[in-house]
Amino acid sequence: MHSFQELFEQFEAVFSQHHFPDSPKTLYEPCSYLLHLGGKRIRPVICLMSHELFADLNKNAFDTAIAIELFHNFTLMHDDIMDQAPLRRGKETVHTKYNLATAILSGDVMNIYSYVHLNKVDNGLIHVVMDLFNQTAIQICEGQQLDMDFELREYVSVEEYLQMISLKTSVLLGASVKLGAQLGGASDGCASLLYEFGKNLGLAFQLKDDYLDSFGDSKETGKQIGGDILSGKKTFLVCKAYELSSDQEKEKLTTLLQSSDPNKIEQVLAIFKNLGIHNLAAKEIEHYSNIAFNLLEEAPVLSKRKKPLIELTQHLLNRKN
Amino acid sequence: MHSFQELFEQFEAVFSQHHFPDSPKTLYEPCSYLLHLGGKRIRPVICLMSHELFADLNKNAFDTAIAIELFHNFTLMHDDIMDQAPLRRGKETVHTKYNLATAILSGDVMNIYSYVHLNKVDNGLIHVVMDLFNQTAIQICEGQQLDMDFELREYVSVEEYLQMISLKTSVLLGASVKLGAQLGGASDGCASLLYEFGKNLGLAFQLKDDYLDSFGDSKETGKQIGGDILSGKKTFLVCKAYELSSDQEKEKLTTLLQSSDPNKIEQVLAIFKNLGIHNLAAKEIEHYSNIAFNLLEEAPVLSKRKKPLIELTQHLLNRKN
Repeated sequence: MHSFQELFEQFEAVFSQHHFPDSPKTLYEPCSYLLHLGGKRIRPVICLMSHELFADLNKNAFDTAIAIELFHNFTLMHDDIMDQAPLRRGKETVHTKYNLATAILSGDVMNIYSYVHLNKVDNGLIHVVMDLFNQTAIQICEGQQLDMDFELREYVSVEEYLQMISLKTSVLLGASVKLGAQLGGASDGCASLLYEFGKNLGLAFQLKDDYLDSFGDSKETGKQIGGDILSGKKTFLVCKAYELSSDQEKEKLTTLLQSSDPNKIEQVLAIFKNLGIHNLAAKEIEHYSNIAFNLLEEAPVLSKRKKPLIELTQHLLNRKN
Repeated sequence: MHSFQELFEQFEAVFSQHHFPDSPKTLYEPCSYLLHLGGKRIRPVICLMSHELFADLNKNAFDTAIAIELFHNFTLMHDDIMDQAPLRRGKETVHTKYNLATAILSGDVMNIYSYVHLNKVDNGLIHVVMDLFNQTAIQICEGQQLDMDFELREYVSVEEYLQMISLKTSVLLGASVKLGAQLGGASDGCASLLYEFGKNLGLAFQLKDDYLDSFGDSKETGKQIGGDILSGKKTFLVCKAYELSSDQEKEKLTTLLQSSDPNKIEQVLAIFKNLGIHNLAAKEIEHYSNIAFNLLEEAPVLSKRKKPLIELTQHLLNRKN
């Protein structure tokens, strides 16, 4: 068993290797560029952690972890185009630094490379791994589509929002945990339970993101407070505010979110305060955190083996940035 | 053994089934739209044909054929964005009919669905199938990148052009033939030989495309003669013309291809005529056709089993549209 930091270092040692051929440079340089922007590598590391609940780390686990991280980066490259995002981790996004066609094609090839790594998984396990991987990849596309659809709509319900983030972000955390467990030899029941753990952790994690954007400390997050409000995003906070508002208030909020009023952030935060969104969001995060912790506790695995996973979960949920 | 037409119908009966869920409609409708624009289904059918050289058709062969056709359509959807093509098979391309984000994401999910079908291939065969499929998919991306890179360059040599079309289009034909053979139980040697047959057929096929665009009969092709010239594409004909020209003539041709001169097509065709490009292109097509036919002849399979494949090859190479 290893801590998050130890597994992060082990993963980086493998992942920082040369992934792509040198040529065509115009195709592969943007891939390497994105991978070198770094990242917390939470998904592949949680896959390795989950594997260690059941068995010593082996090549299957690392190949799957690499596939997960490559796939995640492919989705980032394409999402940034769709979201017209100029920056990723403080640096230019691929389509901004290079161009649109490059960002499409380099993303495509990175997606295929994730399947190259998946195909290294042993005979008896490849089908079950591919099955969950494909199903998850499809759900992530569906989630991204819902996210874009929602941006064109006037209102989105809390339930719809939760369904969207569940597809767009949580299922990949769930799948990362489950794949690690399956490759480690977990029973079907235990693997399914761990999937739900990862998914609920993912929900809590995403909600925490929404929360910190409005109620975090900019010294801790390193970002301006209210970035989501400024861009008019329909976060959990906005959907919850809609739920609690009269039709007239709803309309006011929508108009405000779409406006370029210089006091937009202040005004929306005042609405949130009025409606008690701060506490309601904290409660929602706690709700999904509790589900996640309970599921992890229930998992029929030696308690001491769970220690690193519990620590990571606590770290992710208590984070201030 | 079945003829092309019979296998085309069998394939369509399976392929025209419902591929995608109903929701999100915004994600899946564009996928169905593209698939319903039709197509000759050459790649999946040649995969089935090659399979019939060795064995009766089975589920593995059909699943792989479906994966190939879905993958091909995914590349069309993304290539059309990159090439800024307004039309595909006489109808609006996906990014024109819907929008950019849709064409990116629907393409991505269609790619993943091709892996869903691949994952249905039996245990003993999945690794070898995935291996060739991934390698081919990567080469196709590399070919598309080279194609885009070439558009920004002043000159492209014949050798570079052949390398590009080999990656962009021929390897998928080669892989389709080889996958069918491997799933039918062909020996490694025989499967490799058939791969080269498919690849050379693909080269001849693409060169024929270039040829027909300038020297075809618009009544037969249904397209205006000189479309490639009009858009300034660096086809085999242009690269060959460069090869035979003095520096001064090269510059003239380049200037002409980039111009919007109303007599552009006529003038470029006159240059081609002067340099004998018509005959040289016909010879090049014959060269790769002969290689393909010889390889097919060499393949250690009962002659009568090869009949449908020989007929298809003749049909593809003698086509006038």
